[in-house]
Amino acid sequence: MLKIRNLTSLQTPFWYYDMDLFRRTVDEAAGAARRWGIVIHYSIKANSEPRLLSYMRQQGLGVDCVSGNEVAFALEQGFEPSKIVFAGVGKTDEELLTGLCAGIASFNCESVEEVERLSELASALDLKANVSLRVNPDVDAHTHKFITTGLETDKFGIPRRDVDRVIALLRGSDRLNFKGLHFHVGSQILDVESVFSAECQSAGEIVSHFESEGLHVRNIDLGGGLGIDYYEPDLHPVPDFDLWFRVLRSQIRCSPDQEIHVEPGRSLVGQCGSLVSRVIFVKRGESRIFVVADTGLNDLLRPALYGAYHKVENLTSTASETATYEIVGPICESSDIIGEDRVLPLTSRGDVLAIRSAGAYGAAMSSHYNMRTPARAVFSDDLK
Amino acid sequence: MLKIRNLTSLQTPFWYYDMDLFRRTVDEAAGAARRWGIVIHYSIKANSEPRLLSYMRQQGLGVDCVSGNEVAFALEQGFEPSKIVFAGVGKTDEELLTGLCAGIASFNCESVEEVERLSELASALDLKANVSLRVNPDVDAHTHKFITTGLETDKFGIPRRDVDRVIALLRGSDRLNFKGLHFHVGSQILDVESVFSAECQSAGEIVSHFESEGLHVRNIDLGGGLGIDYYEPDLHPVPDFDLWFRVLRSQIRCSPDQEIHVEPGRSLVGQCGSLVSRVIFVKRGESRIFVVADTGLNDLLRPALYGAYHKVENLTSTASETATYEIVGPICESSDIIGEDRVLPLTSRGDVLAIRSAGAYGAAMSSHYNMRTPARAVFSDDLK
Repeated sequence: MLKIRNLTSLQTPFWYYDMDLFRRTVDEAAGAARRWGIVIHYSIKANSEPRLLSYMRQQGLGVDCVSGNEVAFALEQGFEPSKIVFAGVGKTDEELLTGLCAGIASFNCESVEEVERLSELASALDLKANVSLRVNPDVDAHTHKFITTGLETDKFGIPRRDVDRVIALLRGSDRLNFKGLHFHVGSQILDVESVFSAECQSAGEIVSHFESEGLHVRNIDLGGGLGIDYYEPDLHPVPDFDLWFRVLRSQIRCSPDQEIHVEPGRSLVGQCGSLVSRVIFVKRGESRIFVVADTGLNDLLRPALYGAYHKVENLTSTASETATYEIVGPICESSDIIGEDRVLPLTSRGDVLAIRSAGAYGAAMSSHYNMRTPARAVFSDDLK
Repeated sequence: MLKIRNLTSLQTPFWYYDMDLFRRTVDEAAGAARRWGIVIHYSIKANSEPRLLSYMRQQGLGVDCVSGNEVAFALEQGFEPSKIVFAGVGKTDEELLTGLCAGIASFNCESVEEVERLSELASALDLKANVSLRVNPDVDAHTHKFITTGLETDKFGIPRRDVDRVIALLRGSDRLNFKGLHFHVGSQILDVESVFSAECQSAGEIVSHFESEGLHVRNIDLGGGLGIDYYEPDLHPVPDFDLWFRVLRSQIRCSPDQEIHVEPGRSLVGQCGSLVSRVIFVKRGESRIFVVADTGLNDLLRPALYGAYHKVENLTSTASETATYEIVGPICESSDIIGEDRVLPLTSRGDVLAIRSAGAYGAAMSSHYNMRTPARAVFSDDLK
């Protein structure tokens, strides 16, 4: 159960960040990364709260960006250009220029066309661009179809058929500084051993091909995807970074001058965040009891978009009796359901709910739909 | 095909509003409403662009709000309180007070609990609240499960079992000024005759029940839901308001002192809006050709959230040959697909696309996901 001091005095809804858990998570990830010799770039799209970024920067993590605005924001937040990589299938000229002028560590390019354009822009500015190639590994991550990204039918990465074309391009351009390869199979992966082993096998083959063509793959970026326990966040507050890194290290062969990079997002920030909301009404329908909360898909889109599960707790009810509720938001959309068939202690107007594991892809995907005021951020450090 | 002057000079992405079509649509709706004696409250959640609101206000339309912020915004935009109704399942005290202090035309209450709370607050402020009751008609709108709102398993409206309880409540409170009943079966309804006839039949029974209990139903609000043609927007640019109103008038019996109200959103603003985007890359996958646009689910969420179809046009290609494309956005999500298997004239980098019928639930549901700059609004009036 989430514990927050001075809870009842706070205006809802808000994103609550348990900073002790956050720091513990980052420390474990950074520690495991040091042990296994792995470089972490945090996927900033999961959550761009400056206070989270600041700690990750201090712990030596870099950032993985997916838009020019994210690159600019990371620079503003004090990340060195050498700590910034930039992925994404649709980088505009303006975005490529943002990264080029800053001299970021790597553009993770997702198409031959992007590599060509980057070379042209670098040439026009008389600069060199650090380039990694995201190659589509065609590996099934066994996850929600919306968060599988490594199949050939997905839009991501350079298709294998274009690999030789892009190799020729890299050889022919004096503006492109080839850094390595980038793979990503999907998100919220819980079957760590089998999925990441498959990714490593596919990645290993592609790395060998590049090496045999005389292009040295200095950085092998194996993407993100480590899942979190949405069902029992208190049993598994910190994901098993050690297992993930061990699998990667054991499944991919590296020479001493090669680095393994990863890009976790959800696993670093997911469990430390909860969306805290107050119950406005409890309403008995014909066949269901609806708990109407003061937050909905405007703040947390994941249940509506992915059918995602978030554990919901009643932080204030002292009842020993329970009931089964349909927990819904105030938005005028039938999809605005926070949780279906949830067993909670008897719940009344004014009770405070915690929607757990909401630190990743929560605030980041929020909107002003229905003109609602977005939930603000509250940090445990400020409540002590 | 969408026609825009001075197109190539504009920075993408942007929401383009064809103001001639918009005015024609509002004029037809307002004209049909006058002919059939129907009162329109525009559902502001569909699109809250001040220039659209201004014209609707001038044409005598009221607004249907679903949050306190929407009520406050409508007041700011010059709507008289007597033209504002306020629906929604989860109105907080603060939101109820916003409407109460302004003296809005009606709170469309969705639960017994809400009616009780409204009565308490009105009493505390020594005010009277105008109250309508949204009663769940339990009618299937045959539409996407996320946009059906009139089934008993949905969170919306007062369940029929609570009707007598709420009647007793209205009789017992001197703070509640009963105005009428409110029904809503869903959105994007194309089978106008059968769905709205069913709604009217259900509504008629409930109206009769209230009348027989001595509560005069002055306003019969039959909600919104009129669909638009997402497949052929140019064949059906203006929805058939006349048919809709004729069905409502013919299917519900009214005495001369009763008013029929409706709350269209999508049908008033959907077709006049297009999301205009530039092609960043055309990328040939193993089995598909991806057109990567500079807009995605951050701007237009409907395809990802509902699997919604929006017609996509290439406004600049002059090719007579066509190809089948997967049109995707730049967001790092597999769900960021604008259109699958779309036949377009041969498409290249730099081409300009129009994503049609995006005037409703486009900008209103947009986010800053991936920290992208939201598309701005461009009005045809300013390009002449």
